Amino acid sequence: MIYKRSVNYYETDGMRIVHHSNYIRYLEEARCAFLKQIGLPYDKIEEMGFMIPVLEVNCKYKMPAKFGTVMNIEVKIKQFDGIKLTIGYIVTEEKTNNRIVQAETKHCFTNQNMKPISLKKENREIYETLLKYQEQVEK
Amino acid sequence: MIYKRSVNYYETDGMRIVHHSNYIRYLEEARCAFLKQIGLPYDKIEEMGFMIPVLEVNCKYKMPAKFGTVMNIEVKIKQFDGIKLTIGYIVTEEKTNNRIVQAETKHCFTNQNMKPISLKKENREIYETLLKYQEQVEK
Amino acid sequence: MIYKRSVNYYETDGMRIVHHSNYIRYLEEARCAFLKQIGLPYDKIEEMGFMIPVLEVNCKYKMPAKFGTVMNIEVKIKQFDGIKLTIGYIVTEEKTNNRIVQAETKHCFTNQNMKPISLKKENREIYETLLKYQEQVEK
Amino acid sequence: MIYKRSVNYYETDGMRIVHHSNYIRYLEEARCAFLKQIGLPYDKIEEMGFMIPVLEVNCKYKMPAKFGTVMNIEVKIKQFDGIKLTIGYIVTEEKTNNRIVQAETKHCFTNQNMKPISLKKENREIYETLLKYQEQVEK
Repeated sequence: MIYKRSVNYYETDGMRIVHHSNYIRYLEEARCAFLKQIGLPYDKIEEMGFMIPVLEVNCKYKMPAKFGTVMNIEVKIKQFDGIKLTIGYIVTEEKTNNRIVQAETKHCFTNQNMKPISLKKENREIYETLLKYQEQVEK
Repeated sequence: MIYKRSVNYYETDGMRIVHHSNYIRYLEEARCAFLKQIGLPYDKIEEMGFMIPVLEVNCKYKMPAKFGTVMNIEVKIKQFDGIKLTIGYIVTEEKTNNRIVQAETKHCFTNQNMKPISLKKENREIYETLLKYQEQVEK
Repeated sequence: MIYKRSVNYYETDGMRIVHHSNYIRYLEEARCAFLKQIGLPYDKIEEMGFMIPVLEVNCKYKMPAKFGTVMNIEVKIKQFDGIKLTIGYIVTEEKTNNRIVQAETKHCFTNQNMKPISLKKENREIYETLLKYQEQVEK
Repeated sequence: MIYKRSVNYYETDGMRIVHHSNYIRYLEEARCAFLKQIGLPYDKIEEMGFMIPVLEVNCKYKMPAKFGTVMNIEVKIKQFDGIKLTIGYIVTEEKTNNRIVQAETKHCFTNQNMKPISLKKENREIYETLLKYQEQVEK
């Protein structure tokens, strides 16, 4: 899935480029758009009593983006075993197709008290949807 | 009360000055520090079942601040009648004493379902503490 | 002009609603989209050597927005005299048409050294474009 | 070096914990405080014509922090060869000494046009200061 997003002025810093912390937010936007597209909007997941906290972020900055730069963010499930979920992202500049950022986030699933749960046991529907999209990546 | 704060790099924008939206956040920091100082830390207020949402912000930008600028933020209760609360702020540069921002925020008090409440009826202790500090301003 | 925008997760706070400082950023987004639409994209304005700092923000919060809320932000030039510019905003929830925020920002025009300038003298084209859109509001 | 910082309300999200992107900003604050302490404040580095962009961020989230949590951020130079710089961070909760975040950022040095430079050639003073602090880590 490709999530399209352009850079806002308030997201640039004193170097006149996007502050590196903001890409972590763009990744979240792309992740939420992806979940929505596969039928699992994050607000619905929260309503069902689950949360998907971030366990780890790895982000490589290849090229700076500026105010107004249009970015395409590709989102993919890289790994999912019912307990942990790894999502991969490639952020490119639409105009040149040059890579801006390459990243990965790792997640678990918890109940509302932030206790980790097994999705396989707790919610078969979410489990199978995520599994389906992971399988498609592997093929 | 004076709240002291220096500007972080990620708070500057492409003009190399603090992005104007960040002062709204500095005001919140100063407000929380003030509430703590008068014995009403905001987390305790939330634990007691109350919230103090912002109804209005008025902010005048007098002089830009840069990365590293040390600011003094003066916080005062300007008005309080048990229902609405008006807080005033003056942000100055520590080095020159020049005025950076002059602002005002208006608030009400609500329960956890965001229904407005009368503090006079619901919590006499918070009510009287706020009143005391407002009175000191008036004299 | 109407600028459409939905709320990101990272823009909500501990009350599970959009943090009030973020609306100031949404206003900037809407303002930039408006300037682009009338043929004055902000990056071009900066390239021509001008900046449009914010002198004042007034923002009234009518109703909280949540993660996923789709907002329509109406942007209008309320006043422009070649020196100062006042822009008005009405943020509504798309689904209900209820008002979320009502706001106003005041601006001046400066050169790259942040010295205020008269747009009428310095750049007739920008001056007349802004005037044209202000006139349309007045009629 | 230990950089102390407490969590602001606007840094929490709908889960009532610090949004994961904000730690990336705390790391920057800690890094700037560290550079200042070793005699290389970042604004001075920029004035000398150098920038230290972030090439990579790796961040592991161990435990959530909440509004008001006081954090101690330990900062260390893990590696420096004159071209690339790796900095390590451990964020702990002051009260319990529990680990909140463990992270690493990688940087290079550039001139004002964002061209990578060798610090050893371009600025012996900064080079040697960084080297000195790296050596201390190794011993």
